[in-house]
Amino acid sequence: MLLFTPGPTPVPQNVRNAMSDETMHHRTPEFEAIFEKTRKHLFDLFKSDEVLMLASSGTGAMEAAVVNLCHNTLLNVNSGKFGERFGKIAIAHGLKSVEIKNEWDTPVSVDEVVEAIKSNPDIDAIAVQISESAGGLRHPVEAIAKAVKEINPNIMIIADGITAVGVEKIDITNIDCLIAGSQKALMLPPGLAILGLSNAAIEKIGKGKGYYFNLATEIKSQRKNTTAWTAATTLTIGLLEILETIEKKGGLDKLYEETATRADAVISALQAIGLHIYPKTPALSMTTIDDENASQIRKILKTDFGVNVAGGQDHLEGKIFRINQMGLIAPYEISWVVNSVELALAKLGRRDYDGTANKIFNEKYFKLASK
Amino acid sequence: MLLFTPGPTPVPQNVRNAMSDETMHHRTPEFEAIFEKTRKHLFDLFKSDEVLMLASSGTGAMEAAVVNLCHNTLLNVNSGKFGERFGKIAIAHGLKSVEIKNEWDTPVSVDEVVEAIKSNPDIDAIAVQISESAGGLRHPVEAIAKAVKEINPNIMIIADGITAVGVEKIDITNIDCLIAGSQKALMLPPGLAILGLSNAAIEKIGKGKGYYFNLATEIKSQRKNTTAWTAATTLTIGLLEILETIEKKGGLDKLYEETATRADAVISALQAIGLHIYPKTPALSMTTIDDENASQIRKILKTDFGVNVAGGQDHLEGKIFRINQMGLIAPYEISWVVNSVELALAKLGRRDYDGTANKIFNEKYFKLASK
Repeated sequence: MLLFTPGPTPVPQNVRNAMSDETMHHRTPEFEAIFEKTRKHLFDLFKSDEVLMLASSGTGAMEAAVVNLCHNTLLNVNSGKFGERFGKIAIAHGLKSVEIKNEWDTPVSVDEVVEAIKSNPDIDAIAVQISESAGGLRHPVEAIAKAVKEINPNIMIIADGITAVGVEKIDITNIDCLIAGSQKALMLPPGLAILGLSNAAIEKIGKGKGYYFNLATEIKSQRKNTTAWTAATTLTIGLLEILETIEKKGGLDKLYEETATRADAVISALQAIGLHIYPKTPALSMTTIDDENASQIRKILKTDFGVNVAGGQDHLEGKIFRINQMGLIAPYEISWVVNSVELALAKLGRRDYDGTANKIFNEKYFKLASK
Repeated sequence: MLLFTPGPTPVPQNVRNAMSDETMHHRTPEFEAIFEKTRKHLFDLFKSDEVLMLASSGTGAMEAAVVNLCHNTLLNVNSGKFGERFGKIAIAHGLKSVEIKNEWDTPVSVDEVVEAIKSNPDIDAIAVQISESAGGLRHPVEAIAKAVKEINPNIMIIADGITAVGVEKIDITNIDCLIAGSQKALMLPPGLAILGLSNAAIEKIGKGKGYYFNLATEIKSQRKNTTAWTAATTLTIGLLEILETIEKKGGLDKLYEETATRADAVISALQAIGLHIYPKTPALSMTTIDDENASQIRKILKTDFGVNVAGGQDHLEGKIFRINQMGLIAPYEISWVVNSVELALAKLGRRDYDGTANKIFNEKYFKLASK
């Protein structure tokens, strides 16, 4: 079965091998050396002033960011389940919440954010997904961050990059907190979240808030190459292995280029067989198709062609399907995914199979001259 | 190197193999089936009304327990670093805290708890370690729980069993929340915590508190064999494998018996070579020795004999060493540990080596007639 859900992504064999070695104690020079090396790689990936690894899923890191960086009112951008979650976290912790809500195919505009900031002077942090996985769209986070900082540089910009870090180069000039999760473009099992922080964020954190997710406690420990609580040792070992693998395979820039080319080629291939891209601004992390036969297509993909893609959640259940683009993906695999979508359409009697999807994908991906 | 720290414990090869299989998506019938099976095993292990798995270290589960089960004042028993932590968690979340503090070798008495409860009517939860790892002692948690419930059955009893679950049979009659961690007697990598809850605890949780650690959200999801946030899939797969392994090797009762026999045999062996057991009431999870040469012994064990045991923390640094007893341990390994301690004493010129430790261990463990 080819796993093409936008997280979890498949874990490469060498990474699984590294993680299945004998157990290491977390309070040892051996593990601290691994932690230190991993941190160095993470600074390359995040380009931020500080990086922290937490033993939790991405939602835990979202909570850590909100609790430590918002002390009054959070502006959260809700164009989907994950944007909505930021608001729920704020409310659960007794913070005030202002929400900008749009359809799940619609990115927030810079103007909407600016207006909200101007009319709510209590807002001291804004939380937004770079890539909102619910509908597979890209929010204009960098432009938002720039506009917000011009109005009030003290407003903290929390960017959820759980399905963006490792997918594309993110300009963090105006971002105070960038969040990543292990099971996405980092190709690891779930259970490790990573935060990149600006110096301004570190200043605002001060003594920190909460306990398990108190970022001040973690900053103090992780600068000494250890963690406040028991480290997710195995996942850290896996993280180092995958970051070294990415480096060996040509580095981050090559990964970003391949991801962008692949996402673009998949869109062309699927549009060529008559399918519609759901989000108005597609993220590079996944390709989202809205289709009346979405459920049937997913079922045929799984049963007949050995391909597992994700569906939609909540009101989009049965109405979309989402194909992962994150991580190191072999062309023969993703080529088979678009090919199998075309085969599924033939099975549904929607169009005759003529190999268009596979052909277009390869022409675009390998930059062959199209006729 | 033989890893004999009281967590992390070594992960058996078959468990590491199971965890290194290809990635599985967490929102699938395949994973739900694994989750369901794991839950069934956990009900056997915990004997509680509900069990929940959380993607975090044990500290996260301690926070989840305190936040959801204490709404006013927490009584925490501090005979070490982990008991102290419960109080810190309460304060970090704006709760009131009453602490009973003793030396790290001294268990709390039932009377001390009863007195604290009677003089502080605001106390609505008590948090205590079954096995306090800082000094390796056993608190009389079951007796405390019984006495407290007789005074006020509404007081929630939070028992930290991170180094007790899987070590010994715990009578949960009066315990509302029992906490376990993956990297201890469950022989897994760190990153998964487990909570066993009573029906009274579930009632008090109500709609829950917090967000990532809101237990109401998890109860709702996990009863449907899924998790609220992304599951620690790989660790769950590992947990099922280890629980099945324990079953195949004779079941929990056999594990408990072997652990108790081993811990007892190690104490006899180490006392026979003149060493002193630190805690007044030793936990079965680890054997803790206080010794003026503790640091040198640890160093010799590691360098010359390939044995990694834990030292002490804070004011006990360099003053104790702790030998793990948790999990499935082969007699030849633990026998070598006590033997190597005897060899270390000879190296230090403390006593001539005559093989006593190994001999006493084996006589006791295999219940041979002692002369």
